[in-house]
Amino acid sequence: MLNWTALVTLLAVIFYFYMSFQVGAARQKFGVEAPATTGHPNFERVFRVQMNTLEWMPIFLPALWLFAAYVGDISAAVIGLIWIAGRALYLTGYSEAADKRHRGFGIQALAAGVLWVGALVGIVMRFAHMG
Amino acid sequence: MLNWTALVTLLAVIFYFYMSFQVGAARQKFGVEAPATTGHPNFERVFRVQMNTLEWMPIFLPALWLFAAYVGDISAAVIGLIWIAGRALYLTGYSEAADKRHRGFGIQALAAGVLWVGALVGIVMRFAHMG
Amino acid sequence: MLNWTALVTLLAVIFYFYMSFQVGAARQKFGVEAPATTGHPNFERVFRVQMNTLEWMPIFLPALWLFAAYVGDISAAVIGLIWIAGRALYLTGYSEAADKRHRGFGIQALAAGVLWVGALVGIVMRFAHMG
Repeated sequence: MLNWTALVTLLAVIFYFYMSFQVGAARQKFGVEAPATTGHPNFERVFRVQMNTLEWMPIFLPALWLFAAYVGDISAAVIGLIWIAGRALYLTGYSEAADKRHRGFGIQALAAGVLWVGALVGIVMRFAHMG
Repeated sequence: MLNWTALVTLLAVIFYFYMSFQVGAARQKFGVEAPATTGHPNFERVFRVQMNTLEWMPIFLPALWLFAAYVGDISAAVIGLIWIAGRALYLTGYSEAADKRHRGFGIQALAAGVLWVGALVGIVMRFAHMG
Repeated sequence: MLNWTALVTLLAVIFYFYMSFQVGAARQKFGVEAPATTGHPNFERVFRVQMNTLEWMPIFLPALWLFAAYVGDISAAVIGLIWIAGRALYLTGYSEAADKRHRGFGIQALAAGVLWVGALVGIVMRFAHMG
């Protein structure tokens, strides 16, 4: 069982849920009633943070688990934590101004990239050892 | 193999697919042509149901499978069914009026929360037993 | 280990990432600044391709892995490749005109359907053999 990766997955999920919650709060604060998703730039930025995180979940979660299975549980968990930290920075930056989203975005993209490349190397090495 | 959880996953997936299908039907019915996603409030509510379900898939599916792996297959499947039932209620309610979305939403949120907390407890207990 | 399915998953993930990248490029090209997601029909079509692919990830990935686990690794991987090819056709078609999106969409929908039905048959047969 990949216990550390499982734990970091739950952390990523709750952090993502917290973002959805922020969107609900921003709806109230900036008077954008459901089902509208536009109407106030401050709301739209918070909404885009959640949407972008949603967009990255099918990149992050498969790469995380394939890395964990083919490379290692603890290393996957550590890189997963860096991804979450990058996402948190992206959230705080983007909430302030669209321009301040780039650093956090870069960190989480790099972490996801390392997971993806590591998983690929792990799978290819598995094939090589089987040959 | 977590057979019951696998079965409920397929059920959740086909239910989610059915929602996407409803969006297509609502496009025709209310004359909102792709790629637009706004233009008629009835269409927008159906679209939001699908979007919100999409937003919850990365919460539900990881929590469901971690609960199944760390707690139990059948209990995960039962709570997964409750989640689907809550989503169905959310769909029928929200399609009628934005105000009628809350009960179904609460049920599915509670089910997802139980899966998440149960998985966390299961993982922590696994660590404790290994110590 | 389901090595071929793992490999095709990484391929699907990077292809999906490439689409997100296209959205960023289309933002620049058609002058639609973040967080806006509307403003130019050419941008909106590229954005819808990515959104629709995102919408299908929670259908494709669970069906792919359940098919792999209950039916077979290599057959899952082959059908997964067909799904990616259908998605690529959908991307090139939809980017040209909204009308040209149907063939690629149909191919990927068929591939996902085969994965879903095959997984269901595999799970039901597992239950039958256990009875």
